[in-house]
Amino acid sequence: MTPYEKLMARVQETQLLAGASSILAWDQEVKMPKGGLPYRGKQLALLAQLAHERSVATEYQDLLAECEQDPALTGDPASPQASNLRELRRSLDRLTKLPGSLVAEEAALASEGQAVWAEARKADDFSKFAPVLERVVSLLRRKAECFGWAEGGEIWDALADDYEPGCTAREVENIFTPLRERLSGLIREIAEAPRRPSDRFQRIKLPVDKQRSFVEELVGAIGFDFKRGRLDVSTHPFCSGNHPGDVRLTTRFHEDNLSDAIGSTMHEAGHGLYEQGLPFEHQGTPRGSAVSLGIHESQSRMWENQVGRSASFWRWCLPRLKEHFGGEVAALSFDDVYGGVNRVEPSLIRVEADEATYNLHIMIRFELERRMLSGDLAVRDLPAAWKAEYKDALGLDVPDDARGCLQDIHWSMTAMGYFPTYTLGNLYCAQFYEKADEDLGGLDAAFERGEFDGLLTWLREHVHEPGSSRPAAELCVHVTGKPLSADPLMRHLEGKLRPLYGI
Amino acid sequence: MTPYEKLMARVQETQLLAGASSILAWDQEVKMPKGGLPYRGKQLALLAQLAHERSVATEYQDLLAECEQDPALTGDPASPQASNLRELRRSLDRLTKLPGSLVAEEAALASEGQAVWAEARKADDFSKFAPVLERVVSLLRRKAECFGWAEGGEIWDALADDYEPGCTAREVENIFTPLRERLSGLIREIAEAPRRPSDRFQRIKLPVDKQRSFVEELVGAIGFDFKRGRLDVSTHPFCSGNHPGDVRLTTRFHEDNLSDAIGSTMHEAGHGLYEQGLPFEHQGTPRGSAVSLGIHESQSRMWENQVGRSASFWRWCLPRLKEHFGGEVAALSFDDVYGGVNRVEPSLIRVEADEATYNLHIMIRFELERRMLSGDLAVRDLPAAWKAEYKDALGLDVPDDARGCLQDIHWSMTAMGYFPTYTLGNLYCAQFYEKADEDLGGLDAAFERGEFDGLLTWLREHVHEPGSSRPAAELCVHVTGKPLSADPLMRHLEGKLRPLYGI
Repeated sequence: MTPYEKLMARVQETQLLAGASSILAWDQEVKMPKGGLPYRGKQLALLAQLAHERSVATEYQDLLAECEQDPALTGDPASPQASNLRELRRSLDRLTKLPGSLVAEEAALASEGQAVWAEARKADDFSKFAPVLERVVSLLRRKAECFGWAEGGEIWDALADDYEPGCTAREVENIFTPLRERLSGLIREIAEAPRRPSDRFQRIKLPVDKQRSFVEELVGAIGFDFKRGRLDVSTHPFCSGNHPGDVRLTTRFHEDNLSDAIGSTMHEAGHGLYEQGLPFEHQGTPRGSAVSLGIHESQSRMWENQVGRSASFWRWCLPRLKEHFGGEVAALSFDDVYGGVNRVEPSLIRVEADEATYNLHIMIRFELERRMLSGDLAVRDLPAAWKAEYKDALGLDVPDDARGCLQDIHWSMTAMGYFPTYTLGNLYCAQFYEKADEDLGGLDAAFERGEFDGLLTWLREHVHEPGSSRPAAELCVHVTGKPLSADPLMRHLEGKLRPLYGI
Repeated sequence: MTPYEKLMARVQETQLLAGASSILAWDQEVKMPKGGLPYRGKQLALLAQLAHERSVATEYQDLLAECEQDPALTGDPASPQASNLRELRRSLDRLTKLPGSLVAEEAALASEGQAVWAEARKADDFSKFAPVLERVVSLLRRKAECFGWAEGGEIWDALADDYEPGCTAREVENIFTPLRERLSGLIREIAEAPRRPSDRFQRIKLPVDKQRSFVEELVGAIGFDFKRGRLDVSTHPFCSGNHPGDVRLTTRFHEDNLSDAIGSTMHEAGHGLYEQGLPFEHQGTPRGSAVSLGIHESQSRMWENQVGRSASFWRWCLPRLKEHFGGEVAALSFDDVYGGVNRVEPSLIRVEADEATYNLHIMIRFELERRMLSGDLAVRDLPAAWKAEYKDALGLDVPDDARGCLQDIHWSMTAMGYFPTYTLGNLYCAQFYEKADEDLGGLDAAFERGEFDGLLTWLREHVHEPGSSRPAAELCVHVTGKPLSADPLMRHLEGKLRPLYGI
């Protein structure tokens, strides 16, 4: 074996442990009886420790350094070899720059933070959470100092790199600023619009088992391969990608919200299609892995929004819906369903937000975490700042912190630099979709016939198969010819919502 | 930490890997999509390798040796400390006596063997399997030589130790010989009996989902704790014990065989009750683990046979059965169900055999594997020897090898010394049950009222809680006051079957 082959074998072997952890974590959420919880925590901690030991072992570091010396491997930056070496170096640097004591401190704080946050949210008492959040900010500052950031950058960048490699606050700001302005304008127009879609679709009660069989068919119809995956139920929907041959989606059902079940399932199926489309021959190496959370989210939003909220999709889906459920569903009009899934309504809770206002929730969090990290916003002033932002961006009065700055788990888990990946996902998604639609000469006619393989094949070729061959921002330029911009998403939202609201 | 505490911490940590493997193996049988198979194999192989490395590490061996020098730990042979040290030493000796090359050879041969066996059985062609079986026998002889065996013992003993520690062919023979004679007599009596129970119960078709909800209730009624376990469906029923807080049963359903579903589920639930009853505070150490396959099987047979085929159980169960299923089931008489589950009929296939003839299938396999290992029987002569044994023991003509010596997977997986544990389980079971029945002043009245906690509490105290505190044979003497004998099982079978058959 060459040194590079040895390196890949080691990396793939270590990845087996991550894959095992991913199945155990899935099992914990989906199948495990309660009694298994304490033991499962120990199993996952041990597997994480073993994977970490292998990821920083001297033998591994030497092998990586040896390969980096070989110009035949690094010459072409888009080659599998070069992208593997680049990504492995990035991960190793991040692992070795952090002292073990800080890693342990963060793990303990994340665990404590989640427990304290859950109590504080339940009690609607920010003062309970504030001391922990202060420690989170202080720890993340020290963590960022270990990593460092590029000249002209800022502390936020060092943390975001874990979720969206190479992404900087400045870049995010440059896209978010025009996006916020145009989105706010659109949302104002909608608020004053002459008509509103009905919510009849959302008010119908349907048995959960019938909902389940319907979304299973739907997920199969858009191309999810059940021989290489599953769909189960969990409290919070997620997609667990252990291997392109074994991708596990979860979703949730409420009797009175089929629309949510469809949206959540299409969303997770989008993540799953990405995982199933990653190149099998590079499995277990960076080249064969998802490139960033933003790109991952672009694939979930693709099927949830660009497909699942399109008029052409609903022209195909509605007759199937009527046949499957009958009863009240049979009486729904096209406007009831298409309009219903596209209703826009400023609201307090991010995870319940519609496609348009969702991004404002994200921008608020991005600004607030950025200011907390830079020291510009004190933790104790977070609730007031949150309320001011919601008033300004969405015109809403936040009545309490439980429905305000205590609503999300992320910061309590020490995850700052994460939120923007959701909106980056929406932006990448819209930009990819425009290009696919152009390349394929319009997708609507195919969707109306229930044909989704054209889009999927395009995504396989341009987004899934490339894995981590290029950083996310470069992938976007490579695929669409342009850097990421707010324009495609705004064209998508305006083009759909203005006619719907009679604007 | 004392050296002993360090040793326990290490052992429990290594056990976390075995627990993870057990969940991954369960997942493979019960939930995993087909596409995950090749990757899962690699994950399990890596976890096994890591567990093995930890189990033979010098640091661990030194710690064990240090503890063994401490008379305070080894003084009382039934103390947790002494039984842990004894069992850890036994396992370590077995691990270190085998050269790594032989371990790898066995793993590869087991994998090849199963594949070749499956083909040979399908084609009903023993000549396809014979060369692999010859290699299995030759490898197992070399393996046994590595372990060695006690003076006066034989090669079979060295292999059986993996499944039933301390068990010897001579001991098995001493119990099996009278058992075979008395069983054969009973089966002859039954063949000539004046009446036979009806098979009406076995001929009724019932929807699988109704069967499922029925056996779930049943398993809960006998005491299986669903907060610390699950029940799922798989091709071959099994029980996977990862931890007393997370015990997973599987079963199977056929439309036309509720009786099989009840038997299989009660059987696996018996294994599960043992796992749930192992002492939590010793979890992950030998003291907190099952002592042998024979004792494990005694617990499954306890609920499948001693309880689940008793008249008192059916007096309680039949009204519930009628209420749950209605229809044809409502017309069944007590004799239909109690007689139906106790029908005795010599047959070709071990896994379909009844409670009485089952043990003859085992004895045949024990004698044949013992003779192959000693060199007394050549592999090429196995089919003829098999046929002769079935004619002699069960009066049956074996029409082909697929329903003859190719029916079981065990030998193809290099498992020789395993089969007798099934009958040892039946023997331990009957002996434990007699003692429990005596201690508790008769169990039938409780069963008739659907009260099974008396028996379960007795088993918890006398069999589950002790874990591996004593070797199986000693446990039997300790609990019942007598060494294992064929008498209790024969009293059980004769006492039940003679009246049923009007003998």
